[in-house]
Amino acid sequence: MEKNNLEYLARLRKAMADNGIAATVISSTDPHQSELPPAHWRGREWLTGFQSENGTSGTAVVTADKALVWTDSRYFIQATQQLEGTGFSMMKDDGPDAVDLIDWLVEHLNQGDTVGIDGMTFSISYAQRLEQELSDNGMKLNDGFAQFDLIYPERPGRPLNKIFVHDENIVGRNVDQKVNDILQEVKAELANAVLISSLDDIAWATNLRAAGDIPFSPVYLAFLYLSPSQRVIFVDADKLTDEVTAHLKKYNFEIKPYDGVLDFVASLPKETRLLLDPQKTARGIYDKVGCTPVFGGDAIAKLKSIKNATMLANLATAMEKDGVALVKFFMLVEKEYPSGKLTELGLGKTLREIRLADKSCVDESFAPIVGWNEHAALPHYEATPETDVAIEGNGLLLVDSGGQYTYGTTDITRTIALGTPTEEQKHDFTLVMKGNIALDTIKFPAGTRGAQLDVLARQYLWNEGKAYFHGTGHGVGFFINCHEGPQSIRLNENPVALEPGMVTSNEPGLYLEGRYGIRCENLIACEPWQTTEFGPFLQFRTMTLFPFDLNLFDTSIMTPQEIEWVNSYHTEVRNRLTPLLTPEEAEWLAKKTAPLK
Amino acid sequence: MEKNNLEYLARLRKAMADNGIAATVISSTDPHQSELPPAHWRGREWLTGFQSENGTSGTAVVTADKALVWTDSRYFIQATQQLEGTGFSMMKDDGPDAVDLIDWLVEHLNQGDTVGIDGMTFSISYAQRLEQELSDNGMKLNDGFAQFDLIYPERPGRPLNKIFVHDENIVGRNVDQKVNDILQEVKAELANAVLISSLDDIAWATNLRAAGDIPFSPVYLAFLYLSPSQRVIFVDADKLTDEVTAHLKKYNFEIKPYDGVLDFVASLPKETRLLLDPQKTARGIYDKVGCTPVFGGDAIAKLKSIKNATMLANLATAMEKDGVALVKFFMLVEKEYPSGKLTELGLGKTLREIRLADKSCVDESFAPIVGWNEHAALPHYEATPETDVAIEGNGLLLVDSGGQYTYGTTDITRTIALGTPTEEQKHDFTLVMKGNIALDTIKFPAGTRGAQLDVLARQYLWNEGKAYFHGTGHGVGFFINCHEGPQSIRLNENPVALEPGMVTSNEPGLYLEGRYGIRCENLIACEPWQTTEFGPFLQFRTMTLFPFDLNLFDTSIMTPQEIEWVNSYHTEVRNRLTPLLTPEEAEWLAKKTAPLK
Repeated sequence: MEKNNLEYLARLRKAMADNGIAATVISSTDPHQSELPPAHWRGREWLTGFQSENGTSGTAVVTADKALVWTDSRYFIQATQQLEGTGFSMMKDDGPDAVDLIDWLVEHLNQGDTVGIDGMTFSISYAQRLEQELSDNGMKLNDGFAQFDLIYPERPGRPLNKIFVHDENIVGRNVDQKVNDILQEVKAELANAVLISSLDDIAWATNLRAAGDIPFSPVYLAFLYLSPSQRVIFVDADKLTDEVTAHLKKYNFEIKPYDGVLDFVASLPKETRLLLDPQKTARGIYDKVGCTPVFGGDAIAKLKSIKNATMLANLATAMEKDGVALVKFFMLVEKEYPSGKLTELGLGKTLREIRLADKSCVDESFAPIVGWNEHAALPHYEATPETDVAIEGNGLLLVDSGGQYTYGTTDITRTIALGTPTEEQKHDFTLVMKGNIALDTIKFPAGTRGAQLDVLARQYLWNEGKAYFHGTGHGVGFFINCHEGPQSIRLNENPVALEPGMVTSNEPGLYLEGRYGIRCENLIACEPWQTTEFGPFLQFRTMTLFPFDLNLFDTSIMTPQEIEWVNSYHTEVRNRLTPLLTPEEAEWLAKKTAPLK
Repeated sequence: MEKNNLEYLARLRKAMADNGIAATVISSTDPHQSELPPAHWRGREWLTGFQSENGTSGTAVVTADKALVWTDSRYFIQATQQLEGTGFSMMKDDGPDAVDLIDWLVEHLNQGDTVGIDGMTFSISYAQRLEQELSDNGMKLNDGFAQFDLIYPERPGRPLNKIFVHDENIVGRNVDQKVNDILQEVKAELANAVLISSLDDIAWATNLRAAGDIPFSPVYLAFLYLSPSQRVIFVDADKLTDEVTAHLKKYNFEIKPYDGVLDFVASLPKETRLLLDPQKTARGIYDKVGCTPVFGGDAIAKLKSIKNATMLANLATAMEKDGVALVKFFMLVEKEYPSGKLTELGLGKTLREIRLADKSCVDESFAPIVGWNEHAALPHYEATPETDVAIEGNGLLLVDSGGQYTYGTTDITRTIALGTPTEEQKHDFTLVMKGNIALDTIKFPAGTRGAQLDVLARQYLWNEGKAYFHGTGHGVGFFINCHEGPQSIRLNENPVALEPGMVTSNEPGLYLEGRYGIRCENLIACEPWQTTEFGPFLQFRTMTLFPFDLNLFDTSIMTPQEIEWVNSYHTEVRNRLTPLLTPEEAEWLAKKTAPLK
């Protein structure tokens, strides 16, 4: 395959020279700070040749004589390979050889040099830090250098997928109510209007969705302006249907073109105190703001994180559908495994087909991880044609996947034994499960933060000198992003308290390099437990519905309470799923949910 | 008892008028930010009449027509009583009716007014906040208003207790080594000299101590200046002995008068970059600094928190001595209890006598808490003649106490049953112990913070809707302050990781208002456990040596591992203490450490 990257690089350097730019920094995101932006904003991948199917971690820097891409340790090997012959070299974002990009710039440029960026693809916060460091060192920032407008004529257009209405009976709260909730928070931050750029917040606030704008997330490309007297949505007209237009009219939205957001914020009167989230708003928008900016907006993410009773009831339905899909999938795995013809990639495709057969499932909620033995020991493994292996011999198969159902978003990991598991594998699996159960069953005073509970999931591993280093739990959106804030359950401090209605993952794991990986993940919803003389207490309700592999439990290291938890959970799984299964499937599930002895 | 406070207040108001001061703020601390300052700096207590034996929480504000004392909820009842007839009223520092002192000032003063404080008794940080808020509101700060020099002729002098050398064989690190350690940290903070004001840091750095300057802490009054070329100690000459002078000479200290610190910092050359801890250094000193101040200094507290192997070995000796004292004490309690003549206050005195009978025990490490039944349900209860009760009938006795041994500082809480405990008391005690054991036995990766482990001590209580709200663990000094930073194990986030050599308390509890209180406290030292493929792991070593009350365990809710922990701990207590006991005491201890069934 011929690479054209050297030519692209030459085009870029010419554009830089024409515009008096000594260095350019190129992000991998869009004007909404999306993690997985649409192709229109994947110019960095096009330019450098470094890309991965799922996730874009990479920031490029180009000077007259250097061309570099910063990425993190998940991608060191892949980036090195993909960058060969492109003119770009890799730099490390983390690990012992990490180099800070901004420090590098300051060191390699001269006083008076100008750094050019496309301000629409950097957050206010990042651009501010960059500008400050440059100015401290006698350099300048030009944030109007939109490289790809100049050098990428074949650039794909913006996605024009049709938007649809997310049934308000499913979300239990209409757009008027949500806008009022938001405006109350805006007022609390001493602002009187807000511009929302983050796509998940916009999808949530408008009860609208689309499939395909962003992979694995049913959000749609737009900006949203809200004030007590005006509601404006900035969206490409081609994305609208009559139904969506009617929905927006019903809730008194003015519809303006997507690009119109810049002129709009420029024309706002001085007395508008416009709330902007500096992490989620593009510097290019901030540049245009003609009124008084107010930085803040965490409260909106918090509103979105609290799922009401209607949403939780519908999420239960999504979990039943997902459980049924997984019954079909794992039955097939068991049946086909002896043939030796199963592969990681093939199973990923099969799982997608099974899930999307339910018409309420619009997409997967992320690229599934199907890892066999040592592949599962890489926590973020994603099979590619180069790494794909056949599922044969004895071992552990880890499957981490989820669906975007209109009834809610699922995310589940199960690790199963194929062939005969070793005693060590059973022991380790049971340690992971003991942690999962300890977190699942804890009661805790209102006000408790996730970082306080995190150790419950890790304690049994730690007591044997074992550990996993990823978070135990991330917030989960409702038919939006599978990963959402503000809460988390992890090693790092996060000041956000867990609150009733928040849905979080519970996913301890263990990864033995070159051998096997284990992860056991359910979604858990926070809910009130009881109020005692010591105040209100909360607890978790387990939402996910699929059995854990009975062959992997070592009951000799479990307490009676832990065994009872497994049996009671499996009983609920069986009771909830059986009515939705064929007799053959029901029989299979009955075996998989038999009591642990 | 006649109160003269109205007269004192009149003197103060005259001094204020003479000096053009509209309002004065009076702290309860000294130029070293001591929690329990010497009598010389207890002018606030003298002026207002509000005082408590153990701890001085109270900040006074006087204007031409108002006289107020702010204090926290522990003292609301006591302060209200003591302030009667003094001209002062109480204000609340916490709780629903809390008023911020600085906000109050700004609200009640007029533009152009001057607030006077004695800058030597406020930290740089506090004074800075005060000054900023005043200046934002058109008011001024005069930080040279030393009220008590003007109105308190009978003011006690500074304490002149003799300093003594803390045997360097006990601390395992001489003064040269410690000064070098400090100067390395000074350099890391980009400074080239340091002025240390905090008395525990000075005592630690110089391997010197005194008894009586500060209640319950063998520190001594001084300031310390260190640079690579000069070491100066500012101390009242009357406190020195020949031995101490020789010790200071040996380590190349210049000895200057205590008050000389102000002229000294004023005369430092411009190129001195002087490290000052803004939380621990007086504003009055900062005012005089003639060179370049650098704010920082957490690293010095961190050095002090790491106890080396020699210190830990000697702390083990202190623990044996303390265990022997407690055997004598609790034997006496058991023997005398049937007489009905024991009282909380009397037991506190007895315990002090028993502890201080060992000549290596210089002081108690805090005012002991002896609480019977409902009194123990107040976590900070301190018996006074007004509250004192006889220990009679059935119930729980909580004793929280410690000693300042030259071999190290102890801090231990035991809760024992006298008469017959209820099933509920046994159940609750066992929940508290299960938490204590879970924290004591956890293994954890290096880098773990106390807040991550805290839940281990609370989980069994939380799972029954019960809770305590104080910290689970505070750092403990070595023959210095019983409470020291920087680490802690508590609900609140504290970014400091636990490190080998840190000694921390492990003291979960439960407090049932009007009924009983339970707390079980050991000191635990952090130490390396093992390094695995997942990195280095740490663990705790239990330092405290005294049995928990066998009559209070409900073994039906304990795991075999927990029962084994108790038995193995009790075996160690018996083995370590028996050689130091009389036969009668040994026999008593054998019964108290019999295996749990």
